[in-house]
Amino acid sequence: MRKLIYTLRESFSNNNISKIAGCHNPLSAKLAQEAGFEAVWFSGFEYSTSMCLPDASILTMSDHLSMISSITRTIHIPLIADCDSGFGDANNVAYMVKEYEQAGVAGVCIEDKVFPKLNSFCDKKQDLISTEEFCLKLLSANNVRSSKEFMIIARLESLIAGKGIEDAVSRANAYIKVGADIILIHSKASDVSEIKQFINNFDSLTPIIIIPTTYYKTTIEEIHEISPNIKGVIYANQGIRASIQAIKSTYANILANGTSEKVENDIISIQEAFLYQGMEEYVQNYEYLKREFNNLL
Amino acid sequence: MRKLIYTLRESFSNNNISKIAGCHNPLSAKLAQEAGFEAVWFSGFEYSTSMCLPDASILTMSDHLSMISSITRTIHIPLIADCDSGFGDANNVAYMVKEYEQAGVAGVCIEDKVFPKLNSFCDKKQDLISTEEFCLKLLSANNVRSSKEFMIIARLESLIAGKGIEDAVSRANAYIKVGADIILIHSKASDVSEIKQFINNFDSLTPIIIIPTTYYKTTIEEIHEISPNIKGVIYANQGIRASIQAIKSTYANILANGTSEKVENDIISIQEAFLYQGMEEYVQNYEYLKREFNNLL
Amino acid sequence: MRKLIYTLRESFSNNNISKIAGCHNPLSAKLAQEAGFEAVWFSGFEYSTSMCLPDASILTMSDHLSMISSITRTIHIPLIADCDSGFGDANNVAYMVKEYEQAGVAGVCIEDKVFPKLNSFCDKKQDLISTEEFCLKLLSANNVRSSKEFMIIARLESLIAGKGIEDAVSRANAYIKVGADIILIHSKASDVSEIKQFINNFDSLTPIIIIPTTYYKTTIEEIHEISPNIKGVIYANQGIRASIQAIKSTYANILANGTSEKVENDIISIQEAFLYQGMEEYVQNYEYLKREFNNLL
Amino acid sequence: MRKLIYTLRESFSNNNISKIAGCHNPLSAKLAQEAGFEAVWFSGFEYSTSMCLPDASILTMSDHLSMISSITRTIHIPLIADCDSGFGDANNVAYMVKEYEQAGVAGVCIEDKVFPKLNSFCDKKQDLISTEEFCLKLLSANNVRSSKEFMIIARLESLIAGKGIEDAVSRANAYIKVGADIILIHSKASDVSEIKQFINNFDSLTPIIIIPTTYYKTTIEEIHEISPNIKGVIYANQGIRASIQAIKSTYANILANGTSEKVENDIISIQEAFLYQGMEEYVQNYEYLKREFNNLL
Repeated sequence: MRKLIYTLRESFSNNNISKIAGCHNPLSAKLAQEAGFEAVWFSGFEYSTSMCLPDASILTMSDHLSMISSITRTIHIPLIADCDSGFGDANNVAYMVKEYEQAGVAGVCIEDKVFPKLNSFCDKKQDLISTEEFCLKLLSANNVRSSKEFMIIARLESLIAGKGIEDAVSRANAYIKVGADIILIHSKASDVSEIKQFINNFDSLTPIIIIPTTYYKTTIEEIHEISPNIKGVIYANQGIRASIQAIKSTYANILANGTSEKVENDIISIQEAFLYQGMEEYVQNYEYLKREFNNLL
Repeated sequence: MRKLIYTLRESFSNNNISKIAGCHNPLSAKLAQEAGFEAVWFSGFEYSTSMCLPDASILTMSDHLSMISSITRTIHIPLIADCDSGFGDANNVAYMVKEYEQAGVAGVCIEDKVFPKLNSFCDKKQDLISTEEFCLKLLSANNVRSSKEFMIIARLESLIAGKGIEDAVSRANAYIKVGADIILIHSKASDVSEIKQFINNFDSLTPIIIIPTTYYKTTIEEIHEISPNIKGVIYANQGIRASIQAIKSTYANILANGTSEKVENDIISIQEAFLYQGMEEYVQNYEYLKREFNNLL
Repeated sequence: MRKLIYTLRESFSNNNISKIAGCHNPLSAKLAQEAGFEAVWFSGFEYSTSMCLPDASILTMSDHLSMISSITRTIHIPLIADCDSGFGDANNVAYMVKEYEQAGVAGVCIEDKVFPKLNSFCDKKQDLISTEEFCLKLLSANNVRSSKEFMIIARLESLIAGKGIEDAVSRANAYIKVGADIILIHSKASDVSEIKQFINNFDSLTPIIIIPTTYYKTTIEEIHEISPNIKGVIYANQGIRASIQAIKSTYANILANGTSEKVENDIISIQEAFLYQGMEEYVQNYEYLKREFNNLL
Repeated sequence: MRKLIYTLRESFSNNNISKIAGCHNPLSAKLAQEAGFEAVWFSGFEYSTSMCLPDASILTMSDHLSMISSITRTIHIPLIADCDSGFGDANNVAYMVKEYEQAGVAGVCIEDKVFPKLNSFCDKKQDLISTEEFCLKLLSANNVRSSKEFMIIARLESLIAGKGIEDAVSRANAYIKVGADIILIHSKASDVSEIKQFINNFDSLTPIIIIPTTYYKTTIEEIHEISPNIKGVIYANQGIRASIQAIKSTYANILANGTSEKVENDIISIQEAFLYQGMEEYVQNYEYLKREFNNLL
């Protein structure tokens, strides 16, 4: 069975903020692990972008699961799965949690928007489901997980949907009562003030995670000062956004110069790419097996 | 059915060299199309790297097909599928060609190495199969394709395997006799001389494709002067190599600064990422359907 | 490209009723074709049963698509895809239709129940969506199909949900206005009277399909007499129900006797199974390719 | 994590012969479990037949893995995976074993034929690989499994390939030396004499499994008398062979009578099919969650 070097719970138990990076395939996850992030976030936004499909519940649970399984095979830091609104109702969530836990996922994050959902940075259709309906999803996840180490993260979209702080706090309290281990409070404000307001009104020791995509000017030190309960910060999409810019520049350069010569210094070598493939272990393994055979027979 | 704006044959019929870019998912393929490449190359190397698995026939035909189908859904330029050594023998090739043609692939490239193969830039295990065995694969592909517009590209690994020019030429001639439409002559020399030698000894009008990964200093103009029969140049792996460098730098920067602020200018915006997702069409479509409904009922 | 011997439209144009059999994998589809059915119905119920999952939108669109693609590769009669409630909203339907049409599906059947849906033979949760919301799905399907030969079948669940004939007729008329090519009126009554009532109140020449699972005593001749507009009858689940009974008996027999001897006469031979695999063509193909090679080189 | 009620090792430790049934999807596996079989055999023959593809390494490791994962999710008895010749070389086997063990497979069975393989009941192309090459595969499997409870079964095809008893015994001894836990000796003779001969010449306490497809007249009592080392008997294909016969008869009957009335007594009911789907638990779960919600909030 796949062993995680440390679980999400452990990574949240110390006094630091866990730094979590978005990913959409094994390579981007491995790069996050190598860089020193404590966990990865399988991002619906990144994955949708990589597949050129709207981040709007077009990719299915099966699609997600298939890619996630390839990632957990590759890394040893915990993977948090962005599960959008849970791919349906409470019964769909139950099925998903069983499959995800089996695949080595460390925790699922479910948001309280309708299915199909629309990416939170879109202006339209940011509709929430009722507190009851969402609590059924959390209860369902709680009910089927085989280990309490598998984390259930409730993502609040009240601020995204313009429902205000009070709605967010009231929902957060309900979500915790039915088993959410962690609250992810999402905001698309350009500064961190909305998050602060929420935290000032939220009287709980439950760990909190945030995603500073739009309020990127706030540093992790400033976030730490807001509340010791903020246990994780997700850099959810900068990886793929960087890769797009890089491919665009590289391709333009190659076409302009009629050769890749000018970009060779700005891109990794074939040999370095082999490191990410695990090519050397592969080649060595065959040699090792031959020696073993000669030892035994 | 998926329509290609122009087929591979058309793109090879004019007097220019088609510039072809590597890809491994819909996003990288769309970026290649947007940059102005005439076709994309679904690269086994890129795909393996993205999945953190050795480029050594570990990913299966089903894995390839699944990703390829997502790419042909996304782009309108032709896709050439790097099929390694064909995933088995002549019967496996037959099955593959039927599936790939149905998936909208413009042409398959099969190499004359053993199965499982090892990436050509590795030093070990570069073993070729016999001319007869490889010809059976080409015959098989030829036999099952439903359209002659579907191209069969024979990739010669003689120079990679150290078998010399004579072996390459002799195989190329055999491959053409059994139905290869295009010859891909591969070389890992640091300059283009090996390719030149091959072409000087190869007396045929069959279109030739090359992959200047190691002899990247040779410009497309210089390539064009070698022979008018060189109809395509594949920049097979620079895209993913650029993206790895970019993600590494971005992740290091975020962790060093405790914020993504310093990288924001070097990465594309969320809104630009939505363009690759087709998010606007998606949102507009719903509005359009509502108007249509109100018109009709 | 996959060619259908005749399209669904053709099979509905004559004066007979098309007999359509349920299927859930290539084998069951091929058996239906061999028996003489004019088309197959990729049944959500059969597929769910084969996967031991509730027929309740647990299997995803990707799961369906993957199996459907394997079936269209196998048969030459038209495949109608049971698409449940369309896997989401109108945008999910758009994506689905594009993928299904590309996969060689002859027509999609979408029902006007909520997502996630529950099998119509269950007593609970038979909730319909509004006429408008369902019409958006039909408009969406209509809007993205590339050929009018690709059929859009609107499945009415009014009778299943206990909403009555009037609701069914009113919805049917709306569905036709927005592009439904065929109406599937579903009933779980133990006789055909409900269907008759619907047809008596439904003033339209639109082709109708029915599924006599519960009112199985009504023969196809009796159905034909009800209305010449009934163009198709789906035997949606008898295949898998027969196979379950057979496997149960066979396994019990083997265990009771400590040998399979007693069942050998009641099961097909290995050699006959090879026929369904296409084993002979496979073996012959290799021989043919070798002769071809010897002819050419 | 998926728990097996008892492992394969346990099921082989007592003095009885484990009765193992072939399966190709969750339904057929669940029927085997329900009937009382001690384990299931994910049969390449059954799976190929269900997909209408030759049992000749056309379905890939990914295809197998996907179906196998659905089966282990469904049953609690051990699943032995028929892995054909291991989908490539020793490195492919390493990758496969890691994926299969993660998917909850109890043991893998690898045969000493070439890749691509051809079903053993075909007359052609029954070519073996060298003892050394096959031992590398077994060593590779042994090397990467994370638990010794995960069984490595070496399938001997010497008798299928006409190589004789001596070759079989010599290979069996080598295979055990490099880590095979169990020997599967395959024969297509019409009686059990060939198996007896092998066992008489094979001086080892290693557990043996056999597949009495062609020598079906031999009862399990007679098998038990041959040697106490025969620990398992696989009824590898009777299930799907029974289901084909049943579907054929049922479909013919429906078309002949223009109604399914005549077959209703010979097929299971819709309600019984729901039992295999787990429909009742699904519906109850939703009610339970609602009560829980009302208790908590």
